[in-house]
Amino acid sequence: MSQATTLRERIRQGDLLIGVGARDALEARLIDNAGFDFVWASGFAISASHAVPDASILSMTQLLEGTRSICGRVNIPVVADCDTGFGNANNVIHAVTEFGKAGAAAISIEDKKFPKDTSLLPGGRQELLSIEEFSGKVLAAADARQGSDLVIIARTEALIAGWGVEEALKRAHHYAEAGADCILIHSKSKTPDEVVEFVERWDGSAPVVIVPTNYPSLTEQAIRRLGKIKLVIYANQVLRAGVKAQEEILSEIKRERGIHDIDDKMVPVSHIFDLQGVTRMKQNETKYLP
Amino acid sequence: MSQATTLRERIRQGDLLIGVGARDALEARLIDNAGFDFVWASGFAISASHAVPDASILSMTQLLEGTRSICGRVNIPVVADCDTGFGNANNVIHAVTEFGKAGAAAISIEDKKFPKDTSLLPGGRQELLSIEEFSGKVLAAADARQGSDLVIIARTEALIAGWGVEEALKRAHHYAEAGADCILIHSKSKTPDEVVEFVERWDGSAPVVIVPTNYPSLTEQAIRRLGKIKLVIYANQVLRAGVKAQEEILSEIKRERGIHDIDDKMVPVSHIFDLQGVTRMKQNETKYLP
Amino acid sequence: MSQATTLRERIRQGDLLIGVGARDALEARLIDNAGFDFVWASGFAISASHAVPDASILSMTQLLEGTRSICGRVNIPVVADCDTGFGNANNVIHAVTEFGKAGAAAISIEDKKFPKDTSLLPGGRQELLSIEEFSGKVLAAADARQGSDLVIIARTEALIAGWGVEEALKRAHHYAEAGADCILIHSKSKTPDEVVEFVERWDGSAPVVIVPTNYPSLTEQAIRRLGKIKLVIYANQVLRAGVKAQEEILSEIKRERGIHDIDDKMVPVSHIFDLQGVTRMKQNETKYLP
Amino acid sequence: MSQATTLRERIRQGDLLIGVGARDALEARLIDNAGFDFVWASGFAISASHAVPDASILSMTQLLEGTRSICGRVNIPVVADCDTGFGNANNVIHAVTEFGKAGAAAISIEDKKFPKDTSLLPGGRQELLSIEEFSGKVLAAADARQGSDLVIIARTEALIAGWGVEEALKRAHHYAEAGADCILIHSKSKTPDEVVEFVERWDGSAPVVIVPTNYPSLTEQAIRRLGKIKLVIYANQVLRAGVKAQEEILSEIKRERGIHDIDDKMVPVSHIFDLQGVTRMKQNETKYLP
Repeated sequence: MSQATTLRERIRQGDLLIGVGARDALEARLIDNAGFDFVWASGFAISASHAVPDASILSMTQLLEGTRSICGRVNIPVVADCDTGFGNANNVIHAVTEFGKAGAAAISIEDKKFPKDTSLLPGGRQELLSIEEFSGKVLAAADARQGSDLVIIARTEALIAGWGVEEALKRAHHYAEAGADCILIHSKSKTPDEVVEFVERWDGSAPVVIVPTNYPSLTEQAIRRLGKIKLVIYANQVLRAGVKAQEEILSEIKRERGIHDIDDKMVPVSHIFDLQGVTRMKQNETKYLP
Repeated sequence: MSQATTLRERIRQGDLLIGVGARDALEARLIDNAGFDFVWASGFAISASHAVPDASILSMTQLLEGTRSICGRVNIPVVADCDTGFGNANNVIHAVTEFGKAGAAAISIEDKKFPKDTSLLPGGRQELLSIEEFSGKVLAAADARQGSDLVIIARTEALIAGWGVEEALKRAHHYAEAGADCILIHSKSKTPDEVVEFVERWDGSAPVVIVPTNYPSLTEQAIRRLGKIKLVIYANQVLRAGVKAQEEILSEIKRERGIHDIDDKMVPVSHIFDLQGVTRMKQNETKYLP
Repeated sequence: MSQATTLRERIRQGDLLIGVGARDALEARLIDNAGFDFVWASGFAISASHAVPDASILSMTQLLEGTRSICGRVNIPVVADCDTGFGNANNVIHAVTEFGKAGAAAISIEDKKFPKDTSLLPGGRQELLSIEEFSGKVLAAADARQGSDLVIIARTEALIAGWGVEEALKRAHHYAEAGADCILIHSKSKTPDEVVEFVERWDGSAPVVIVPTNYPSLTEQAIRRLGKIKLVIYANQVLRAGVKAQEEILSEIKRERGIHDIDDKMVPVSHIFDLQGVTRMKQNETKYLP
Repeated sequence: MSQATTLRERIRQGDLLIGVGARDALEARLIDNAGFDFVWASGFAISASHAVPDASILSMTQLLEGTRSICGRVNIPVVADCDTGFGNANNVIHAVTEFGKAGAAAISIEDKKFPKDTSLLPGGRQELLSIEEFSGKVLAAADARQGSDLVIIARTEALIAGWGVEEALKRAHHYAEAGADCILIHSKSKTPDEVVEFVERWDGSAPVVIVPTNYPSLTEQAIRRLGKIKLVIYANQVLRAGVKAQEEILSEIKRERGIHDIDDKMVPVSHIFDLQGVTRMKQNETKYLP
C-alpha cells in the first residue's frame, strides 16, 4: 500500500493527524521515531537548511531532492510543501508527477503568485492569484495524479494577505470544487480567532489543515473540539529548537576553548549511527560482503 | 582574495585555527556567526543529514552540492571532507577541480579504500590503501590545483585501522613529500595519547590537523602547548547537540499535545529569517522591485 | 503494470528484444518513436554527454538523474546501466532502491572493480572482482528489490579482461545462482566468435544479453538462430551518428559563414517541439490556464 | 584571465563573435573544436535534451547544472541562457551568483513573464514584463556581479510578442541604461527585415546580439555590413542536425535488423573517447596510478 493510500485512508477514518516539519531526512527520522503521523517536507525549513529566504529562491529541483531524500528514510507519509506549484498549471502538473514519483503522499500548493514570499514575515510580499487561475492549478494537480491516491492540499493565503475570512471561505469552496482533497488555511494572527472562525463557518466536505505556528495556544484538545480539522502541522519548531541548542553549544565551545565539558548537551555518536541506519548496513555486510 | 588564499595565509602565520563541522549551510552560518575560523563540510554530518551511513553511500555529487551550498553562505574558509577522493587518482583530480570551483578553501582526502566506512564505528571496515597508491592520489590532487591556493590535507587512518603510530608517521612523511599541505591524524582512542605521541614524534614541516571527537579532554590550551597542530576540527558536536534538543522538543510536543508551552526552547521565527538573509533580500527588493 | 513487470513478461515470452542506448531523454524518445523494445540508459553515453571518460567519473547521482529523466519521457522499459554498482554490496542495495524508484525496469551491474574503465578502450584497466564478491553483489541486488519485478542483469567482463570463455561461463553460472535474471556477456573482439561460443556452451536458464558494438556483423537473424539471447543492445550508435552529423554541420556553418543553406540537413524546429511534448502542454493550457 | 574577461575584451575589440547553441558538454566540445567563438548554453536545447517544453519546466538548478557541465569542458566562453531570470530580481541576483560561479562568461535574461513560453512557437504565450520591472532585474544583475567581468545580456522579446520595433528600441534603451552590456533582439519573422530595422535605428552604445534561427538568409557578411552586431548565436542547428541523423540511423537499424551496415554513418568509438578526454586521463594514470 502506497503512503498516499495510507494517508488518504487515515484522513477518511477521521483521525486528527499530527505532522511535524523537517528540513532533511535526519529531522524526518526524529519525527518518525517520536511517533508523529506524518512529516511535512517544509519549504521554509529546506530553504533555511540552505540558508536562503523562503521566497522561491530554492528551485523546484532542490525542494524535490530534499523531499525525495526525506521520503526514502521514513515509514510515515510525507506531505510535500510545493509552494505555489513553481509557476503556472504546467509547472503544477510537472510537480505532481515528480513529487509523486519521489514518494510524497500529499502535496500542498498555495494561492500566492510566484515568486512567493514566506507567509509569516512582517511586511512580506503577499500577492494572491485570481481564484480562477488557482482553481485551474488545483484541477491540473488533481488530473495529473493519473489514478494514484496522492492527496492534493490547496492552501489559501487569503488571511496571510489580509483579505479576510470571507474571501478565504470563498476561495476554499472554489478549490474544493476544483478537486482539492483538503484545504489548508494559514494565518499569521497571534490568536487562533480567525482560523477558528474559518473552521466554524466552513461547510465544505474537504477536511481542513492548519499550521498553528503563530497561535500556539490552540492545543490539540481544542482542535479536536472544533472538528473539521484533520491535519495539524507543527511546521518549524524542530528547526528552531535545533538552532537554539546549536548556538548554545557553539558559544560554550568558544568560551571553554574545547569540547571537554559538553557531553551532557549532545547525543552520543552511536546515536547518530543508529539514525543513519548503520545496524541494517552491518547486517547486510554480513550477508553480502565476502 | 580567495578563501583558499586566506586559509593558506592564516596557516602560514601559525595561528591555531578552530573549525567546526556542519551538515548544511544553516549550521555553517551558526559556526561563522559564533566566530570560528573555518567550517568543516563534514561527510559524516552530510551523510547524517540524509540519514544514510557515512560509508560512501552518498555520491560525490551529493557531497559536492552540500559543500557548494555551505561555501555560498559563509564568510570563513570551508574545508571540504572528500573522504577517499571518491575512487582512484582520476576521481581525485575531478574532485579537486569541482570542489575548488564550489568555493572550498581546502580539501581533505584519506588513505582508506573506497567504499570507506566511518572512522569511529566500533567494528567498522577500516582498510588502508598502499602508501604508494595514496601518495599518487595526493600528488594528483596537488597537481590538479593548477595554480590555485587550495590547501590539500592528507588524512591518514593508520591509527583508526590499528596500524600504530609508527605506520602513521611513515605515511605522513610520504604524503607530505607527495605534496600534502597538512597532515590530518585521526584516532578513535578514548585518550589523546597516541595522537600526542604522533605529534611529538612528527618532524615534517607540514602542519598537523586533529579531530578530537573521541578524546575531548584535549583542550585548546593543551593543543597549543604541543605545537605543530594548526587546525582543530570539532567535527560533529553541533549535529549531536541539535539532535538532542530536537528529540526533546518532539517528546514534549507529543506529551503536551500541542506547542503551547515550548517557546523558551526555540529561537523565534524571526531569528531564522535573519539566518536566511531576509534583511538583505528586503533591501534588494527596495532597490530592484517596482 | 510497471515497466519492470512489462519487461519481465516480455523476456519470459521469449521475444528477442532490441534496445538502443541513449544519452538523454531526447535520444530516448527517438528510440521509442522508432519502435524499439527498450532503452539502454548507457553509462558510456551519459558520460559522453558530460564529455568525461566512462570511468566512474560521473557519480551515481549523475547517472541516476540521467536515467530518471529518460524514464519519465518514454513508454517503453528502460534498462539502467549501473556500471559496477558504484562500490560494494551496500552501494548496490542503494542503487537498486534508487534506480527502481526512478522508474528503471532493469538494472545491469558488471563484475569489474570500482572505479571501472570503459570496456572497449584499447589498453583500458580491466580488473575483475572475485566471483565471490560479485555474487554477493548480485544477491544483494536481488534481495533489495523487495517484491518489485525489477530485472537484475549481471554482466561479466571476463572476455573484456581477457580471461576467456571458460571463466565467463563459470562466472555466469555463479551469478545466475546468486539471483541474476539475465547474463550480459560483453566482448571487444572484432568477430562474434567468442560470444557465439559462450552462447552455444551456456546451459543456464537465465537468458543472455549481448552488446554487439565491436562485432556488428552479427545480425538479428543470426542472433535468433543462436537462441538463448533475449536482449540485444545497440549501445552507442545513436550517439555516434549524432556526433558525425553535428561535426559536419558545424564545419559547414563555419565554412559558409552562416546558416542560409543547411535546412535540408536538419529537422525543423517544429519537430523538436513535438519531441518536447509541446502539443500536450498546449492542450493542458487550454484546460487549466485562465 | 577569466572567460568573462576574455569575452568582454573580445566584444570591446569589435570582433563579430559567432556562437553556437549546445544542449550538453559533448555538443559544446564539438562547437569548441570547430573553432567557434563561444557556446550558447541554450535553454531550448537543454530543455529538449530532457524532452520537456522550453517553458520554465526545467528548474534553475537543471539549467545551472547543464551550464556548469558545459563550462567545465570547453576552452571558449560560455553564454548562459537564463530565460527570464527564474522569477523576480531576487532570483536574478541568485542566478548571477550561481551561473558566475559555474563558469559562465555571460548571462542572458529576457523580458518575458515567468513562466515563459519558447519564442518561436506559433501561438505561444508571449507576455512581456513592464519596462520598469525588467529594468530593475537588469540593474540587479549588474550589481550582483560584484566586480567580476560577467557580461549581462538583456534580451527583449518585444518583436516576439508582436509589439513592434518602436517598443523594442524603447526597451533596449532602458535596459542599456540599467546596466546591460549587450542587447539581444529576438525575432520570429521569416525575413530579417524587422531585426535589420532595429539595428539600423539602434543608437545606443551597447552592442547587439541576434539569433537568426528564423531568418537564416542573413549571412555573416550581411551582418558585418550592418555593424553594431557583435554576437550572433546559431542557437539550435546542432541539435536539429543531430536529431535528423539519429532518426535516420534508427530507421536503418530497424529496417536492416542489425548494425552491420552503418559504419559510414557514425564516427568511430575512438572518436568519442577523444571527445571524452580519455587521452588526458590515460596520461594522468601513468603519472598517478601505482
